Amino acid sequence: MATLNYLTTTHFDYGAVSKLSSELTKASISKLFIATDTGVRAAGLVDKVTGALNADFAISIFDETPGNPTEAAVTKAFEQYTSDGCDGVLAIGGGSSMDLGKAVALLAGSGGPMAQYDPLAGGGQLVKGVAPLIAVPTTAGTGSEVSVGFVIIMNDGRKLTFASPLFIPKAAICDPELTMGLPSMMTAATGMDAITHCIEAFLAPASNPPAEGVALDGLWRGWRHIQAAVKDGTDREARWQMMMCSTEGALAFVKGLGAVHAMSHAAGRIERLNLHHGTLNAVFLPAVLRFNAPECGDKYERLLQAMGLAPGADIAEAITAMNADIGLPSGLAAMGVEEDDIPELIAYAQKDLAALSNPRRASADDFEMMVRQSL
Amino acid sequence: MATLNYLTTTHFDYGAVSKLSSELTKASISKLFIATDTGVRAAGLVDKVTGALNADFAISIFDETPGNPTEAAVTKAFEQYTSDGCDGVLAIGGGSSMDLGKAVALLAGSGGPMAQYDPLAGGGQLVKGVAPLIAVPTTAGTGSEVSVGFVIIMNDGRKLTFASPLFIPKAAICDPELTMGLPSMMTAATGMDAITHCIEAFLAPASNPPAEGVALDGLWRGWRHIQAAVKDGTDREARWQMMMCSTEGALAFVKGLGAVHAMSHAAGRIERLNLHHGTLNAVFLPAVLRFNAPECGDKYERLLQAMGLAPGADIAEAITAMNADIGLPSGLAAMGVEEDDIPELIAYAQKDLAALSNPRRASADDFEMMVRQSL
Repeated sequence: MATLNYLTTTHFDYGAVSKLSSELTKASISKLFIATDTGVRAAGLVDKVTGALNADFAISIFDETPGNPTEAAVTKAFEQYTSDGCDGVLAIGGGSSMDLGKAVALLAGSGGPMAQYDPLAGGGQLVKGVAPLIAVPTTAGTGSEVSVGFVIIMNDGRKLTFASPLFIPKAAICDPELTMGLPSMMTAATGMDAITHCIEAFLAPASNPPAEGVALDGLWRGWRHIQAAVKDGTDREARWQMMMCSTEGALAFVKGLGAVHAMSHAAGRIERLNLHHGTLNAVFLPAVLRFNAPECGDKYERLLQAMGLAPGADIAEAITAMNADIGLPSGLAAMGVEEDDIPELIAYAQKDLAALSNPRRASADDFEMMVRQSL
Repeated sequence: MATLNYLTTTHFDYGAVSKLSSELTKASISKLFIATDTGVRAAGLVDKVTGALNADFAISIFDETPGNPTEAAVTKAFEQYTSDGCDGVLAIGGGSSMDLGKAVALLAGSGGPMAQYDPLAGGGQLVKGVAPLIAVPTTAGTGSEVSVGFVIIMNDGRKLTFASPLFIPKAAICDPELTMGLPSMMTAATGMDAITHCIEAFLAPASNPPAEGVALDGLWRGWRHIQAAVKDGTDREARWQMMMCSTEGALAFVKGLGAVHAMSHAAGRIERLNLHHGTLNAVFLPAVLRFNAPECGDKYERLLQAMGLAPGADIAEAITAMNADIGLPSGLAAMGVEEDDIPELIAYAQKDLAALSNPRRASADDFEMMVRQSL
């Protein structure tokens, strides 16, 4: 049975940071813990956001978020949150900072250690509360600002997805201005992350037509504007549309994701490479679209419509061409993935939460075929 | 600036009434006030819903909801609610019963009389609280089960739209089984109501892309299934899809509606005729689509895509043809509207809340032209 829930308050437009003070107050946050990373801080975005605050808030900044956030970083951040007496989290950054912020909010509301909340061991039942969190994305890709989940690499090497309606931020402040300085490579990679969210969420088999409508609308916007955003980072319309695609992708993936994310999570664990999640999604997407086609009925025709492609066109080919056009790597090999990485990658992808909502059940052989197609 | 909020928990599928007991308990309702009408009750639907309760609830049934609910009926219902010591509302029926139920919940939470909440006189500020309400639709059209609003004809003859996030039901139970016995004429009229919600919400100028995606998805479903639902009321797939179209239409119209609804509200006030809201929407829709076209940019192309029509096709003509095919009246004259009704209809439509969110500003002359085209 479909149970439909829609999510959080989202202030969305150029200038949306002006809404931050009132949302912090509404969430009863007075001592801010800012979760961010060095790149975001160096780009001046933390100053830009805190500069928009129109009241005095005590602020503690943690800028050591890794590209793929780890349990160790979460633990360190939570120690800082506690010792500075914070009462809420303000996440400023891409998916990494927002996900780390969500993990800190969980520990602040329900206590540590992180490992006890292992979703694969029923840890969700131990989630009693979550400290208030406001999310301010500075990339257009992850959509973590409106999503129920976050992803952490645990001390034991597993990359776990934690999900609960309690993890949805109290409010999201989506100001495309904050993405204007994003380099073209990051615009491309995060943009394809958002587009992948829209496509995988739409194809996931759960019954949730409103989420499917949101996904197709996000895809409609993202596919039409990603090239402009990559080629001219100052294109304000394209930046707005890509950020909306990102938000819509995450509103949609309450339905679930699929094999692309299962493999991206698996490859994102390879420590020596520290690969970008959105780039991985872009690279895996064509093979998964080919694999899923037989199980998706008329859904590919709706994807084609949303993308403005001709009926019957090859979506996988269109994605491959788009990746090339916006400067993303042609495959895993170009990103440094080696033959020896494949067995663990497959084993991990099979067990990833996202594999469960892929529209076509994928065996180890299927995953191997898709990984090899993506090399 | 876009501020996006999505709405309430919706249990949606055949058998969804099984979720009612737990939702009533979650909403702390133990003494149920059932808002319904004689037709719904005579069709056995109240018994069907209460028969699905798996615990003892005290029940007070009010079945005198008029086709277009009035302030007088609301007052009478609230007296019964109070004298029977109820602590929450269960609305079972179409838009009339759900809207009356919402009004009773408002009076129960904030006190009477109804007139003090006049939205055109700032009455919304007096809304302090609303008694818990669960909505169980028995038609697929209004979507009131997930919407922020309700419409009441006041003692002074005005038809007012009350709207607040507080009026959203605590939960919606959407069980297409409850629509299986709906006569074909009502299936057609309510179905076109839902389709009109999707179209007007999509075209409303507010910035809310997720709502636009939901609207297009609802339209995609409704347009493909309305004929099957009308022609064979036992078509379970068509009934499911029409109910989803209805729910999605109302999820979408947080964006606003338009001139169709402004005129339907105006015509719905003509007491001697007691016209059906959905039928009125169907009849006004073609003229409004012609009038709005110059202001809607590429949006008509997206509507055509959702409806499976050829690029550049005439949407207004397609609606007229659909109305004829499913047995709806060809125009207002066939419904009993007379020349003498027109001046008041125009004057009222101009002042209706829905007129404000029409994509093209309509003068009195414009409304007259649209009314005359719809005769």
